[in-house]
Parts: sequence; structure tokens; C-alpha cells
Amino acid sequence: MSKSLEDYEKLQELGKEIRTLSGVAMLLEWDQETYMPKGGITSRSEQVELISFLIHEKKTSATFKKALEKLIDLESGELKGEDLSNRKKRSVEEFYGEYIKDAKLPADFVKKLAKANSKGTHAWQKAREENSFEAFLPYLENIVTLNQQKAAYLGFKDHPYDALLDLYEPGVTTQELDTLFGTLKPFLTDLTKKLAAKKKVSTAFLTAQFPRDKQMEFCHFLLDKMKLDPEKFRLDFSTHPFCTAPHPHDVRLTTHTSSSGFFKNISAVMHEGGHALYELGLPVEDFGTPLAEYCTMGIHESQSRWWECFIGQGRPFWEFAYPKLLEIFPEQLQGITLDHFYQAINQVEPSLIRVFADEVTYILHIILRYEIEKEFIAGTLNLADLPHIWNEKMENSLGVTPDTDMNGCLQDVHWSCGLIGYFPTYALGNIYASQFFDTFQKTFPDWEMRTTNGDLAFIRHFLLEKVHRHGREFPALTLIERATGAPLSPQPYMDYLTKKYSQ
Amino acid sequence: MSKSLEDYEKLQELGKEIRTLSGVAMLLEWDQETYMPKGGITSRSEQVELISFLIHEKKTSATFKKALEKLIDLESGELKGEDLSNRKKRSVEEFYGEYIKDAKLPADFVKKLAKANSKGTHAWQKAREENSFEAFLPYLENIVTLNQQKAAYLGFKDHPYDALLDLYEPGVTTQELDTLFGTLKPFLTDLTKKLAAKKKVSTAFLTAQFPRDKQMEFCHFLLDKMKLDPEKFRLDFSTHPFCTAPHPHDVRLTTHTSSSGFFKNISAVMHEGGHALYELGLPVEDFGTPLAEYCTMGIHESQSRWWECFIGQGRPFWEFAYPKLLEIFPEQLQGITLDHFYQAINQVEPSLIRVFADEVTYILHIILRYEIEKEFIAGTLNLADLPHIWNEKMENSLGVTPDTDMNGCLQDVHWSCGLIGYFPTYALGNIYASQFFDTFQKTFPDWEMRTTNGDLAFIRHFLLEKVHRHGREFPALTLIERATGAPLSPQPYMDYLTKKYSQ
Repeated sequence: MSKSLEDYEKLQELGKEIRTLSGVAMLLEWDQETYMPKGGITSRSEQVELISFLIHEKKTSATFKKALEKLIDLESGELKGEDLSNRKKRSVEEFYGEYIKDAKLPADFVKKLAKANSKGTHAWQKAREENSFEAFLPYLENIVTLNQQKAAYLGFKDHPYDALLDLYEPGVTTQELDTLFGTLKPFLTDLTKKLAAKKKVSTAFLTAQFPRDKQMEFCHFLLDKMKLDPEKFRLDFSTHPFCTAPHPHDVRLTTHTSSSGFFKNISAVMHEGGHALYELGLPVEDFGTPLAEYCTMGIHESQSRWWECFIGQGRPFWEFAYPKLLEIFPEQLQGITLDHFYQAINQVEPSLIRVFADEVTYILHIILRYEIEKEFIAGTLNLADLPHIWNEKMENSLGVTPDTDMNGCLQDVHWSCGLIGYFPTYALGNIYASQFFDTFQKTFPDWEMRTTNGDLAFIRHFLLEKVHRHGREFPALTLIERATGAPLSPQPYMDYLTKKYSQ
Repeated sequence: MSKSLEDYEKLQELGKEIRTLSGVAMLLEWDQETYMPKGGITSRSEQVELISFLIHEKKTSATFKKALEKLIDLESGELKGEDLSNRKKRSVEEFYGEYIKDAKLPADFVKKLAKANSKGTHAWQKAREENSFEAFLPYLENIVTLNQQKAAYLGFKDHPYDALLDLYEPGVTTQELDTLFGTLKPFLTDLTKKLAAKKKVSTAFLTAQFPRDKQMEFCHFLLDKMKLDPEKFRLDFSTHPFCTAPHPHDVRLTTHTSSSGFFKNISAVMHEGGHALYELGLPVEDFGTPLAEYCTMGIHESQSRWWECFIGQGRPFWEFAYPKLLEIFPEQLQGITLDHFYQAINQVEPSLIRVFADEVTYILHIILRYEIEKEFIAGTLNLADLPHIWNEKMENSLGVTPDTDMNGCLQDVHWSCGLIGYFPTYALGNIYASQFFDTFQKTFPDWEMRTTNGDLAFIRHFLLEKVHRHGREFPALTLIERATGAPLSPQPYMDYLTKKYSQ
């Protein structure tokens, strides 16, 4: 074994310890949302805090630094292990990138952030229940201030928001988002207006009573069709659906069911199933290195939205799945044709709540948050004015005005737990997915027929080849270019929406 | 705040970190047995191994040593914090006792042990399935050798077995066990013979078909009656029932159900419920110190056997609970009177499997294992002869001979995972419980009537006062003497059995 390879393996060993601890933290959080008795909340916070501290300690330890230094110059970022494979070189660069970010944040500051986020989440929950923005305001102010400091610690060239964005979507800048969103916003506003004016079909059946066990029977049928390995995942229930992966062989997804919320359940299961397939498809032999990690949050989201929307709200998929649905729920779906069903699940209507938004209006919700966040961080927005600004923006872009802050600026958890700079990844997920989908359609001209016949395995395989198996080998924008032969562009998304909604 | 108190609080802070990590390890193990997808097993082992390593590292760290040294002389064991309360002094002594034990075991040796135990467990599972003692023998040899080394590291006065026993039941020695078991063995052998010759009632109904959801309805009813706080525990399913407490406010118990195993399920739930009440009753304000830990494994077992046997196989309890049972299962229990039921669940019959043994024969199973373990550690038993020796001992004390090693020396998991010196705590649990029970009966002369009326809260309260709230404030034998006014003795257990089984 070459000296560099030996050094690389030592680095991977240390990385594995860190990733193993992250896996533990993920499991603790999963348990908190699924099975933990209420009384466990205080000790659980302490457990998560301690594990997070140990992770930070290991990431910034002298041992780790020494191991990393053998493979890359920490000052110049110049690689030393010249005989490593290109993949491993990229891995070292990613190790280095993370190290630099972590080392920039003092341990005390990280603790302070964690505390503010945890307090903020509790305060937000209460404030939201009570519809009281005032009660949340001091916590939000604290979080915004800390995020401004965070941006300063991390450093940036043009806009402080770039520093935060870089934590979730490295390689994408505020400038790029401004361009992307600048193109999409007028297009989506126009399309929304056009579609909202169209005649609607009745959607009452979507909220009919569907027994929960039968719902889950169908959801498990879907995950099985999507080819999630039953030995490596499980599906549970939580207030908000999520997916977490303590290890690529131990992936946990959750959904939320109510007897009248079957179609939200289906969407959630396909969405989280998409995230899960990504985690299950990462190269496990590289566990502990960035090569076995998802590329960016946006790429992750492209995988979930792919299954939720591009496949799961598509006609070919329901050609296959609707008969199965009718078989399980003949009463609830009596008289509902596939045409009617398909139109109902794809109805476009401006609404107040992002998570329930349709494909067309969804990104408008994100752009609104992005515009606000940028101002948060630049310090050009008086936080006390947030409800007013929010409502005004909603009116301008979606034509609806929140009745309450609960349905307005208090609706999302993100800011309360310190996630500023994260929202754009939701929009990017859709844009990335559309670009993959464009290539997918060209690669498999018969994809509609195959899907209609119930074959979803080849779809999963396409994503595995193009995205999953690469982990973090390439930056997001390179991954896209390699997979699709074209640089990032909003065009495929606009074409996709135009085509789908003109039919 | 006095200097000593300040030092004590610093020590508690460090203790809290350690206990928090133990809680994390417990949760990982709980998840492994309840919900983890099969594919997670390798990464789970790595997670548990890493957390265990971090715990050992913290327990033996220079920081911990320094904090401890401020309150106790590490050479002489002499207390320094003279102005601390007696409780806190005891706490420091217990901190010290644990530290000394931990410091005696080199980190490399601890890792080696963990590996041998993990490999041993896997090998045992396979060997048991295949009924092949030979396949298990090399692993057992390795485990026994390591436990001999462990005893040598830990040190002992009279018998190397004392060193191991001290890990689970500090304060009790081999000599004491020899005396106790020397009295009990002939008594139990005689009583077993007498009772086994008696006329039996039909027990077929015990293995009738009881739908699992209805079983669990009854089990939850029992836990509710036992006053487990529903916000601080949960009950799940695993192959082998167990109870674990990541925190006194987050206690997890499991049971095992099959449609024909309802009465094993009830026993398991009351047994684990007893363990859970102990954990729930520990003084949470002392979390992180030995004061908030269970006293010994034997005391823990006294709490589980109390509810499983002394209450849960008692007549007053079923006077109250049987009508409820009849209400839920009128068909399965048709024609079975309370008298019949009570006799059936208390039938004494020598059998091969410890975990299914009745109250009278149970300790004979333990004594057998104790006799063998002592020889393991003394090196006076050729391990290859184990099946032969086991069968001979079974024949001599219980009058039954295992048909296979699977039902003989391969039946228990303990040795395979390195638990040598642990079995006696199961016997001690019953002996302790009987002594508490004796005092309980004298304290509450009307206990039978109250229990018959469905009041179990005062029973829980008695245990809370006498046992739970003290945590590790007193050594086991002191705790017993304080609670009962008499030193440890096998007499109450013999009296209890004589009285119960002569009726």
C-alpha cells in the first residue's frame, strides 16, 4: 500500500468515528419523533447536545488535523497525496472543505447556536399555537444575530448570505439564485394566474375517510415497487414526515396519517422514499468519507421531489397505481375516473401553506422566504415588520393573504431552529429534478409505457447511476452537467410545467 | 456554597456526561432489539462499541480523576469533603469504588472483552440453533480465560469469583453465597419432590389462543394499576423481554407475545414492570451520581420478582385481576374457576428451562449455574465436559435430564456475552424480595384485602420508600437491614414458600 493510501485510510477511520456518532445523533432524533415517551425530552436534548459536542470535538481535534495535513496543505488547500485516485483526491478536498468550515466556528459559538436553536424551536411551537408573532420575535432576533455572526465567522466574497447558503448548497451563490429566481418568478406567477382561472374538478374524495391500516398497506406497496430494500429501512409515524439515515444500511423514514389525509400520506411516503433511496444507494464502502455522503441538500431534495412529483403525480404512474388503489378502496373512490383523479391531485391553486402547495406555486413560496432571508442576514429588514412584509409578498406573488401569522410567517419550523440559507435548496431540488427528468425521458423513450406497466425499478436504477452512487464525488453543478450534458438551467423546469399543465 | 459542595457538583457534572452516554448506549441497544432493520446490525455494533469506548475513556480520564481526587484520597480511599452530607459522602465513595474498578481494567483489555463477548453471542446463537456445544466451546474457552484475567486485574481476597460477583452484587461474597445456597438447596430439593408428587390441575387453558391485541390491553391495564407513569415509559416487543432506562424519565420495557403464550407475557410484563418502577423511582435530582443508580443487580431483581411472583402469582392479586381477565376472555377461560386458575399458574414441576421455572425450582437452576461458574473461574472444570456435568447436576438437583444441549448448557445467553458472576443475582433477587415481603405483610396487615380491591398503589409506594428512592445510598445488605430490621437471611424465603405451597 502506498503511503498516501495508508494516510487516506487513517483519515477514513477518523471520519468513520465522526460519521458513526452522527448516526447515533440521527437515531436519537428519530426516536424522539417516533417512540420516545414525552418525559424523555429533557434528557434527550442533553444526549443530542453531548453527542453533537463530541462530534465537533472530533472534527476539530489535533488528531484529525494531523491526519488531514498529511494529504492536503491546510494553508493553501494544495493536495499532497498525488498518487491517490481522482475519487479519493476529491474526497480529501471535501474533507478539507468541511474541516475549514468547522474550524472557523469556535466551540463556544457552536454551543450557543445549538442552545438558541433549541430554545427557538420551543418558543416557535408555543408562539405558533398561540398565533403570537410577538412571543417569537425575541428568539428570532437572537437567531438572526447569531446567523449574521456565523456568516462573519465563515467568511464570504459578495453577500453574507453566500456563507450560509454554502453550508447546505455548496457551489451555488446568491447571485446565481437571483438569476434563477429572477427567471422563474414571473413565469410561475403568470402560469399560476392562468391555471388558477381554469375550471376545477371536485377534490372532495381526496379527503374522504381511508382507514389508516389500508393506507399503510398501499404505502408499503409503493415503497416495495420503488425498490427500497426491506432489510435496510423502516417506515414509522411522526408529526412531520422525515427521512434520516444513521447508516446506508439503516434508513428510517416516517410519514403522517390521518383517516382524511391519505393523499398527503402518499405524497409524504414517496417524497421520503426518494430521500431514502438516495441514502440506500450511497457507496457504503466509502462510509466515513464524503464520498459516502449525499452531494448537497438540493440534490437530496431533487430525489424526493422526483418521486413525489415527477413520478408520483405523473399520469403513467397512476395508470399503473390507480387500479391498485381502486382495488383497496372501491367505496371511497366510487365513480372517480383516472382522469378525474389525475386532475384532482394536480390542481393548481394559490394557497397559504408551502408544504401543501402544488408543483406550480411551490417555488413561489420558496422565493418569498429567500428574499426575506437575504434581508435578515444583510440586516436590512426590521424583524418586527416580518408579518406585514410576509403578507404583502404573499399578496404580490400568490395573490392570497394569510388570515393569521400561524398561516403566515409562523408556519415554518426552519428559522426557529436556525436554518437560514436552507430554503433555496427546496427550490433547487425541483429545478435539478426537472433537468434529470429531461435526460431520463430522452434516455428512455418508452418510460411512460414501462411505468404504466408497473416497472419502477429502471427509474431507481437511472438515479442510482446518475446520482446516488457518486455520493459527494462531484460538486452539485458538475454532477448535473455530467448527468444531463448541460449546465444548470431553469428551462427544463419551465418546459416541464408548461407541457404538463397545458395538457 | 462550600468548596466541597462545589467540587461535588463538578464531579456530578462529569458523572452526568458519563451517564448520559450510557443512556445513549441503552437506547441503541433497545432499538436494536425492537425496531432496527436487520441491515443495521453491523453499524449498530460499531455505534455501541464507540459509545462504550467513549464511556470508558471518560470514566478513566485525567479530568475525572482530578475531580474525584478533590473529594477522596485515591490511595487510601479516605474522604476529604468532610462537610458533605452523609448521602453525598456515600456517593463519593461509590464514585471512587467504580473508578478503582474501571481503572484496574486496561482500555485494550476492555476492548478485547467486548469483542469476545460480541463474537461469543453470535457463536452461541448459531450453536444453540444447531444444538452443537462443540461449535460454542472455543468461544466459551476464550470468554472464561478472559474472565479469569478480569478477576486477576480486579483483585480478590479469598476466591477469584468474588472479583466478578463484586461487579454485579457488591458486598456479597462467594462465602456468603455458599452459606445461603447450602441452606436453600436441600430445602428446595425436598420441597420440589413433595410438590411434584402432588395431584396436578389441568393447565391446557394457559396455552389457549389469546389474541395479541387483547393480551396487550390487559398488560397495559396491569402497568397502569402498578402506577407506571405513562409519560415516562413505553412497552414494546422483542424476542426476549427486558427493561432499560436511558433516563429515569425515559424507561423502556419490552415483552414477547404469541397467541398461545399469554401467561408468559403477563409474567414478563409484571417482571419488567417491576424493574421499570425501580428506575422510575430513582432520585432524578442526583442523576449522574451513584445515588441515582440502582443499588445492585440483586436488588433490581428483587423488584421484578416482587411484582412477577410475590404479587403477580399471589391469590389477592388474582382475586382482583381474574374478573377483569374473564371479562376480556370469556371464551378462553370458560369454566376455569379462580381456584383452578391460581393453582395452574403456581404448579410446581421440575423442568429443563430456567426462565420458565416455577418459584420453587427457580433457585435450583441458579445454584447449578453458580456451582459451575465458580469452577470455571477457579479453573477446576474442563470446559469440554460441561454438557456432561450440566446434565448430571440437573439430574441430581431437579431430577430431570436435558434431551439436548440446546435445552441444557446452551440454554442461557449469559456466558456467551461474558456475564460470569451474574447468575447469583437472580437468586438473591428472590431472597431479598421475600425479606421485603415479610416486612410488607407486617406493615400492612390488611394488604390482602386492599390488593383484592385493586389497590396496588400502596405496594408501589412501600417499595419506593424502602428501596427505590435510596438509589445506591446504601450497600445492598444495609438497605435490606434498614428496610426490614434484620440481616440477610434465607428464612423468609423458605417460610414464604412453605406457607404458600402448603395451602
